[in-house]
Amino acid sequence: MENENRNAQNGMQLPNPHLAQMTDDNLYHFGISRTSHDLPALFGDVKFVCVGGSARRMENFAHYIGKELGVVSANERLPNLAGNSDRFVLYKAGPVLSANHGIGVPSMSVALHELLKMLFYARSRDVTFIRIGTCGGIGVPPGSVIVSNAAVNGKMEPAFETVVLAKGIHRPIIVDQELASQISSCSRTEDPFKVILGKTYCTDDFFEGQARTHGAVCDISEEDELQFVKHLNSQGVKNIEMESAGFFALCHKAGVKCSVVCVTFIDRLSTEDVTADADVLSEWTQRPQVLVARFIKKRLVISV
Amino acid sequence: MENENRNAQNGMQLPNPHLAQMTDDNLYHFGISRTSHDLPALFGDVKFVCVGGSARRMENFAHYIGKELGVVSANERLPNLAGNSDRFVLYKAGPVLSANHGIGVPSMSVALHELLKMLFYARSRDVTFIRIGTCGGIGVPPGSVIVSNAAVNGKMEPAFETVVLAKGIHRPIIVDQELASQISSCSRTEDPFKVILGKTYCTDDFFEGQARTHGAVCDISEEDELQFVKHLNSQGVKNIEMESAGFFALCHKAGVKCSVVCVTFIDRLSTEDVTADADVLSEWTQRPQVLVARFIKKRLVISV
Repeated sequence: MENENRNAQNGMQLPNPHLAQMTDDNLYHFGISRTSHDLPALFGDVKFVCVGGSARRMENFAHYIGKELGVVSANERLPNLAGNSDRFVLYKAGPVLSANHGIGVPSMSVALHELLKMLFYARSRDVTFIRIGTCGGIGVPPGSVIVSNAAVNGKMEPAFETVVLAKGIHRPIIVDQELASQISSCSRTEDPFKVILGKTYCTDDFFEGQARTHGAVCDISEEDELQFVKHLNSQGVKNIEMESAGFFALCHKAGVKCSVVCVTFIDRLSTEDVTADADVLSEWTQRPQVLVARFIKKRLVISV
Repeated sequence: MENENRNAQNGMQLPNPHLAQMTDDNLYHFGISRTSHDLPALFGDVKFVCVGGSARRMENFAHYIGKELGVVSANERLPNLAGNSDRFVLYKAGPVLSANHGIGVPSMSVALHELLKMLFYARSRDVTFIRIGTCGGIGVPPGSVIVSNAAVNGKMEPAFETVVLAKGIHRPIIVDQELASQISSCSRTEDPFKVILGKTYCTDDFFEGQARTHGAVCDISEEDELQFVKHLNSQGVKNIEMESAGFFALCHKAGVKCSVVCVTFIDRLSTEDVTADADVLSEWTQRPQVLVARFIKKRLVISV
C-alpha cells in the first residue's frame, strides 16, 4: 500500500539508478532540459506517447487527435515543443504527446530514451507508447493496417541485438498482446481498410536489408528477392519496417506498455517500389491515426 | 581508351546491374523520381555531396558554401529540392549538394542509396562524398575537428556488419587516406581549433552503445563507463559518432570517394553530457564546414 502510494505520487519509474543522482538532465535532441522547463507542469498529465518516423506526419497527428479529443480548435496551430533542436519535433494535445523519431532503430532509440526520461522527470503515470508508422506489406492489400502481435529482427530472431561496452547483447522482443488486441479491435466493419494482427520483420536497412534489388548497390537477384519475400510470408510476416524490434525491446526494458501500428504502402509479393500517388498515400497514412485515435478516446473514457 | 570515353560520357557507375533495366526510379525519401525531374540537367554538374545528421545544419552549409564559391548571393534563399518529402532535405549550391541523413546508419543508408542513384541517373562524374558531423571526443579539447583516418564498428571491428536475406555479412571499412589527409591539411595555424586525423568509433546507439549512464535504462556503472572510455582512448579512438562505419563501407562498395569530418562537442574522458551553451555549439558546428569549404575551393581551382 505504501509502495503503491509512492508509485502513484512519483509516477513512472525507470531502470536506471543513476538518474536519481542527477540535478539536471539535458534532453539534447529535443532541446529541453530539466532545469529549463517545468517538466511536471508541462508533461505530468501525459497518458499516451505516439511516435512515428516523419515530422510532418506526427505534427498532423497531434492536430488530428487534439481535435478528436476536443482540446485543439479547428484553426489552432500547436507549437513544436522541441523547437530549440532540429533533430525531432514534439507536440502535445491534451494527454497525448506526438513526436517523430526519424528512420531506423538508432534514431528511434535516441528519441525514445529522451521521451522516457522526459516523462520520468514529469512524474507522468500509466503512460502507453504507440508507434504509428508506414511499412511494406506481405500478402496483404496496400493500405492495410498491421498491428504487430510479434516482431523479429533482421536475422528473423525474436530478439533485439544491441552493443554495450563493445559486446553484443540480445534483449527479448515482448509484445503486449492485450494492448495489440485492444487497438486492433477498434477496427469497424465500415472502414475502407483491413486491420490485421501480424508478425513484423524489422530491418536495419531499407534496400539490401529488405531484399530490394533497386538500391545503389545490390548483390542479389530478383529470384533471391522473390524467394525471400515468399519465405517471410511463409513465416507469418505481414509487414516490414525499421524500428519495431528496438521499440518493443526498449519499452519492455523500461517497463512501459507499447504497441506498433503501421499502414502498408506496397505488397512486397508483387512489387518493391512505392507507386501509389501522393493523395492515395496521404489517405492511407491517416488510417493508423484513425485507429489509434479511436483507441485513445475509448481508453480515456474508460479511465475517467 | 574506348572504356574511358564511355565512362566519361556515362558518368558514375554503380554495382547494381538491375538499375540499367529500370525506366523510372522513385527516390522516395527525397520526393524525386527519374521521370518527374530532369536529373542530368539538375545534378549532372555535381562534384561534392556533403551530408550530415541535422536538416538545419545542412541547409546552413549549402548557403555558406554557396557564398564561398560565389554562386549564392547574400540574401538568396536556396530551395529545398526534397520538399515533396519530409524525410530529408536537399540543397544545391553550384557543384555542391548538401543533404541531411538523420541519426544512425539505417537512416544515413536510406539517404546515401538514394543520393548515389540520383547522381548515377544524372551522369555526374568524379563525385566526392563528405560527411560533416557532430560527435563526442576522446582526449581532445571540445570543439576539435576530427578527420577520420580509420573507423571501427560498435564491437571495435574494422568492418560494417549488415544483414542481407536474413544473414549477417561484414563489409570492409575502407578510408581514403589521401582524401583525409588533403582535407585535414586545409587547417591553418591561425584557426581557433585543432584538426586531428584519428580513429572513429561508430555505434548504433547514443546512450548504452556509447557507455553513457544517463539513458532511460542502464545496466552499467560509472566505473564501467570510465574504464571503457579509457579503453577507447588507449586504442587510438579520437571520436564517437553513429554513421561513419556504414558510410565508409557503403561508399567503398559503391565505388565513390568519401571522408568523414566531425566536430567534438564534449570530451568523454571528463563528461558524458553536452553542456556548452547554444552559441558555443553553433560556432563549433561551423568548424568542419569551414575546413570542408576550404578543401572544396582548393579542389575546384585545381580541377579547372
